[in-house]
Amino acid sequence: MQDRETVRRLFDTAEALAAEFAGTAVERDKAGGTAKAQRDRLRESGLLNLIVPRAYGGHGLNWHDTLRIVRLVSRADSALGHLFGFQHLLLATLRLFGDQWEHYYAETVRGRWFWGNALNPLDTRARIAADGAGGWILRGMKSFCSGAMDADHLIVSALAEDSGQLLIAAIPGDRAGIRINADWDNMGQRQTDSGSVEFHEVRVHEHEILRNPGPLGNVYATLRSVIAQLVLTNIYLGIGEGALAEARAYTLGQSRAWFLSGVDSPRKDPYVLQKYGEFTVELQTAALATDHAALLLDAAWAKENALTPEERAHAALAAAVAKVHTSRAALDVTHRLFEVTGARATVAKAGFDRHWRNLRTHTLHDPADYKLRDLGEWTLNGTPPTPSFYS
Amino acid sequence: MQDRETVRRLFDTAEALAAEFAGTAVERDKAGGTAKAQRDRLRESGLLNLIVPRAYGGHGLNWHDTLRIVRLVSRADSALGHLFGFQHLLLATLRLFGDQWEHYYAETVRGRWFWGNALNPLDTRARIAADGAGGWILRGMKSFCSGAMDADHLIVSALAEDSGQLLIAAIPGDRAGIRINADWDNMGQRQTDSGSVEFHEVRVHEHEILRNPGPLGNVYATLRSVIAQLVLTNIYLGIGEGALAEARAYTLGQSRAWFLSGVDSPRKDPYVLQKYGEFTVELQTAALATDHAALLLDAAWAKENALTPEERAHAALAAAVAKVHTSRAALDVTHRLFEVTGARATVAKAGFDRHWRNLRTHTLHDPADYKLRDLGEWTLNGTPPTPSFYS
Amino acid sequence: MQDRETVRRLFDTAEALAAEFAGTAVERDKAGGTAKAQRDRLRESGLLNLIVPRAYGGHGLNWHDTLRIVRLVSRADSALGHLFGFQHLLLATLRLFGDQWEHYYAETVRGRWFWGNALNPLDTRARIAADGAGGWILRGMKSFCSGAMDADHLIVSALAEDSGQLLIAAIPGDRAGIRINADWDNMGQRQTDSGSVEFHEVRVHEHEILRNPGPLGNVYATLRSVIAQLVLTNIYLGIGEGALAEARAYTLGQSRAWFLSGVDSPRKDPYVLQKYGEFTVELQTAALATDHAALLLDAAWAKENALTPEERAHAALAAAVAKVHTSRAALDVTHRLFEVTGARATVAKAGFDRHWRNLRTHTLHDPADYKLRDLGEWTLNGTPPTPSFYS
Amino acid sequence: MQDRETVRRLFDTAEALAAEFAGTAVERDKAGGTAKAQRDRLRESGLLNLIVPRAYGGHGLNWHDTLRIVRLVSRADSALGHLFGFQHLLLATLRLFGDQWEHYYAETVRGRWFWGNALNPLDTRARIAADGAGGWILRGMKSFCSGAMDADHLIVSALAEDSGQLLIAAIPGDRAGIRINADWDNMGQRQTDSGSVEFHEVRVHEHEILRNPGPLGNVYATLRSVIAQLVLTNIYLGIGEGALAEARAYTLGQSRAWFLSGVDSPRKDPYVLQKYGEFTVELQTAALATDHAALLLDAAWAKENALTPEERAHAALAAAVAKVHTSRAALDVTHRLFEVTGARATVAKAGFDRHWRNLRTHTLHDPADYKLRDLGEWTLNGTPPTPSFYS
Repeated sequence: MQDRETVRRLFDTAEALAAEFAGTAVERDKAGGTAKAQRDRLRESGLLNLIVPRAYGGHGLNWHDTLRIVRLVSRADSALGHLFGFQHLLLATLRLFGDQWEHYYAETVRGRWFWGNALNPLDTRARIAADGAGGWILRGMKSFCSGAMDADHLIVSALAEDSGQLLIAAIPGDRAGIRINADWDNMGQRQTDSGSVEFHEVRVHEHEILRNPGPLGNVYATLRSVIAQLVLTNIYLGIGEGALAEARAYTLGQSRAWFLSGVDSPRKDPYVLQKYGEFTVELQTAALATDHAALLLDAAWAKENALTPEERAHAALAAAVAKVHTSRAALDVTHRLFEVTGARATVAKAGFDRHWRNLRTHTLHDPADYKLRDLGEWTLNGTPPTPSFYS
Repeated sequence: MQDRETVRRLFDTAEALAAEFAGTAVERDKAGGTAKAQRDRLRESGLLNLIVPRAYGGHGLNWHDTLRIVRLVSRADSALGHLFGFQHLLLATLRLFGDQWEHYYAETVRGRWFWGNALNPLDTRARIAADGAGGWILRGMKSFCSGAMDADHLIVSALAEDSGQLLIAAIPGDRAGIRINADWDNMGQRQTDSGSVEFHEVRVHEHEILRNPGPLGNVYATLRSVIAQLVLTNIYLGIGEGALAEARAYTLGQSRAWFLSGVDSPRKDPYVLQKYGEFTVELQTAALATDHAALLLDAAWAKENALTPEERAHAALAAAVAKVHTSRAALDVTHRLFEVTGARATVAKAGFDRHWRNLRTHTLHDPADYKLRDLGEWTLNGTPPTPSFYS
Repeated sequence: MQDRETVRRLFDTAEALAAEFAGTAVERDKAGGTAKAQRDRLRESGLLNLIVPRAYGGHGLNWHDTLRIVRLVSRADSALGHLFGFQHLLLATLRLFGDQWEHYYAETVRGRWFWGNALNPLDTRARIAADGAGGWILRGMKSFCSGAMDADHLIVSALAEDSGQLLIAAIPGDRAGIRINADWDNMGQRQTDSGSVEFHEVRVHEHEILRNPGPLGNVYATLRSVIAQLVLTNIYLGIGEGALAEARAYTLGQSRAWFLSGVDSPRKDPYVLQKYGEFTVELQTAALATDHAALLLDAAWAKENALTPEERAHAALAAAVAKVHTSRAALDVTHRLFEVTGARATVAKAGFDRHWRNLRTHTLHDPADYKLRDLGEWTLNGTPPTPSFYS
Repeated sequence: MQDRETVRRLFDTAEALAAEFAGTAVERDKAGGTAKAQRDRLRESGLLNLIVPRAYGGHGLNWHDTLRIVRLVSRADSALGHLFGFQHLLLATLRLFGDQWEHYYAETVRGRWFWGNALNPLDTRARIAADGAGGWILRGMKSFCSGAMDADHLIVSALAEDSGQLLIAAIPGDRAGIRINADWDNMGQRQTDSGSVEFHEVRVHEHEILRNPGPLGNVYATLRSVIAQLVLTNIYLGIGEGALAEARAYTLGQSRAWFLSGVDSPRKDPYVLQKYGEFTVELQTAALATDHAALLLDAAWAKENALTPEERAHAALAAAVAKVHTSRAALDVTHRLFEVTGARATVAKAGFDRHWRNLRTHTLHDPADYKLRDLGEWTLNGTPPTPSFYS
């Protein structure tokens, strides 16, 4: 844990970086590609180590604060928020799945490593086979590899050719045979480099495999998906909050009263006020639900191997509530903000549509309907969600 | 403040009483009228003094816990929850508006007083005039006087005939000239006795008038409406939670799978699970928002006359968020619960419609649209809500 | 078909009866039980024969107009609208399932028969067995038998003991061994007598069985469920329209402006106007969808045995669209009308909650979710709904 | 009026053109700018004269069919649908505002004119002054001038410098002093050239001014806004229908079942089917409301100067119902279609976000809230909408 003063300085650093990112967010959304300069600013900032305990040189933040910083960055630029959030998710993956995490934590701090993702468990095209000499050969490919481009180190997953078991390893981003394709050209989250990675006879050492306890290998390890869900939730919330702030500035600065409204400013229009009221209710309740889930996560995280399935379930269910509610809230804000800004706010240079495009893209990560079903199973039948990479 | 053990005992007492009330809730809803027996059980229970500080013989609970007990009672019977919640609102009114509160607190504990309401500020038919001998004469009437019937003491309001000023007084329920009409016959909250009270030349003593600081007489006194709004919010939430619990029991115990569902039990129906998931998201986020507002209220309450307008505004805005969100959540649950129970659950003896009738009636106390406008004014224009009996 | 003048006279007759029924609707909702006087007024009015062709002494109306009269009656009293609508559904059942319909049509006109329903296909407790002498014995019971009480003739269904086949017969309401229970005491549609019917060794003659083509026995016969769905839809729409009319009268006559609204009448409140606007959009689009489906039904009905499965599917799909949309529209109006009338409109004698109770009860007849799935199957997969008693 | 065969041929022509436009819609959305080639294809097709009576060489279609063709084009490309719809709105403007319309109709047919819009009545920067020689000089500018670029003729509006009266004129697009700026770079409807037009001492002849009866100059002339609203409505509906068709093709061809769904194809996923069902209900009811309003418009249009304010009001109210409902329906479809296609459908080359961007941009033309208020005024107070360019 950290003293409040240090925490405050980290938030200040993040705010300053976010303001910097905001200045170029519209143009970078248009350009797509790799946000190399911004990634390097994150490296320099030291913020890539938020969750690393102080004993390993990190900042020792809890998840509650770490996730709030993910949210804060996402307000300004949700693609960077995504990369930044996944950095912490991948650090958590090391901690939860493998006993070599201390090594990687120390190296991450030392080398200012930005971690990249090549783990997509639903894409089964990557296979790994023993090389007969105690090592492994990785072949095939993975999609949706957010942040793989320009990553110092990657978390990769593959099915073992013999056993069909899912193995997860940490390997350097420049290991021979890895080809990271610049093929992410999607309607939103455009600078997340969430494209494909190819593995051409890539060597993986046994000590790089996160084997103890392995992926979702015990109750504690299954916290990985709770963290993943809350990283997403905080990105969504950040998008909604950022969109509301931009809408407000536009309404106050540029919108005009509708000629039938009978008032001289949109600030006084009863329907404009109503919508700002609705956005407020939506986002404030979303923030409460999101922060509440983070507190349960912190409590669960602190339990380590003493974590019970019941405690894990409560954290997972709180995260599911937060994710469903926040998705809806932020989608509503980004969808309807134009109704409080007016037609002229559709000008491309304002870039207001990027909020919806970013959020719409990212909220498809896993279907909200199955989160609702999980919650229904719990409330109706008392059945906790089966841990998986998504629940 | 109270030790956790005492708090827990109070919750246990309330749970036991609530279970008792639940057993007759359907028949009492049908009958309407005064819940005399249940009111006496509340008197005996000591729960009418939750918010009274220990120094005056009360339980010294904070608002957070007091309001949770209001919610708990409302789960079982929202008419009783209403009367019980208003007891505490009226105790708060004494504390906030008049310097004679210590006297009344001690008497309330000593006499097991149940307080009744005759304060409706929107009904201006009651007038009060000086009697020329240092006292006052109250004439006219008030509507929506919840809990006035069988009240030991009443909080009444009236406009001063000369100045037009609103005066509020605490007078015995059996003071000569008071006629409490049994004319509350409404579609919901049927045992709240929210009918009319007539005042026929009712004598009011000067020392009964809450004059210092008087109604909404300083920043601290304006907390009265924050408390009122949170009492309502907790009643709404209790109704929603109670309805969900009853729906669940019915689905598990009596509902049948739809013949086209392809499953053998409604417990497995994808659409039934979806709705239970939605109810869960709605009510859990409502509970978080409601409890959060209560914490801000407790902080504001503790400030007494040091309370700043900004702190008051934050508590009021949090209460507004909670009220709007909870109203919607609970209305949705009570409106749609039939979709998870099926047609046979409309049988009168199940009484499931009472949840909607109770909530629909009570959510009209003040319009949600004007809460949204308040919130919009805050978010868009930075204008805090103007304190009133409703904001 | 009928000339417009005759049609207009029938509408006028129905309007006059509806006005009469409206005068006692609130008290009869409270009382429940059998609306004997009103049923007799319907008998006297000749309106029970709307759909009977002129050749058999009926009025020869098409479904479009017949259903609009069902809607019109439902505006005033949806329990009577239900009984009245089911009269025509049961007449259609005779026409579609059995070749003895001409006899029954003539007798219905001659005897001013009110038909009752004991057909619920989901309740399999009624069994029918050959009596060894060319006739049948009916035993067991049926639930949800709307209009069975005081019915001149009943449509009953039962499973044949040997074959398990569903047989449907038309038998006199006073046939020995029939016991019609006055056990319908539900939260809505309280005067529909939708209780249970017991069959104690009830004799059924072979010629009373609707055998040719039998239940859903050919494409034409499957129109029965399209008619059933549209009868329901018109009842729902009538409830919504009736509720809106009552709300409007109340807002104009009795509601008061909210003290924060800045206007002197609710007629000018921007949020009240908004809600009336929303109700208008909902109910007018519902009426268009409902009437459109009725036109497709009329076209299909006229085709008789030449009706193709494709034409049947189009009528069924249009009815499904109308039913889902109308349910939602009318539920929203009956749920939210209180927001345009205010708290005082919850007084029991206004009876405004009966609209929601009636609609909520009746909209559970079959789940909207499975109608949506049918529509999704059509739009996504091109699969028409499988004809059943509900699709 | 036209024979059905000719009408069918026009629809076929439009379908063929739409298919052609669809092939390049994604890339042209990305490029923005002027759709010169497509505009010329529309000129060649003869479809620019749909509403011109046969007596003047046009196709003599009614509004019902004309608007359906606007919808059909909008399914493929809503920017082209917009330009195509405005062609007919501007032709209607000539007919309704000026007695020189016959001349312009004949010339439009003869010269294959594409009309452009520079009329925005809310932008008051354009002024017109008498030149002292019986003519006029136009100065200033207009925003939101859809289709002005590459227009053969323009409809312009300006305030008269002396009287402040709004004058509307028809002038050639290449008249000296007109500068049409290529400054439309907005998030949607990107090829509508809805940028600004500058007027530098532009000469306008007296005979070019639509003076009899002038803008909104009599009841008949006020149909202009009903037509405008229905053009918009049909564009919105076309966008929704086009989006649904593309979503369906993607779900069937490329989506994968969610791993927790228990089914092997998204075609069988209960939640996917539910959403397709909801989209079906929304769009089919929207189409019914839209076509219904067009029929009322056609009846009103045929009345010419005999049109009464009541008839006008009914058409305007039906158009308002259609517009509000269709906006919501199509916004919902374009917003949620990703939930039935899955994350991979966010790939930029699929271009699915353009549906939402196009619709969101265009639905801001005038606020839905004020349409709802108009409808509320009608339903509650019986007040018809005051004719304006938007009501």
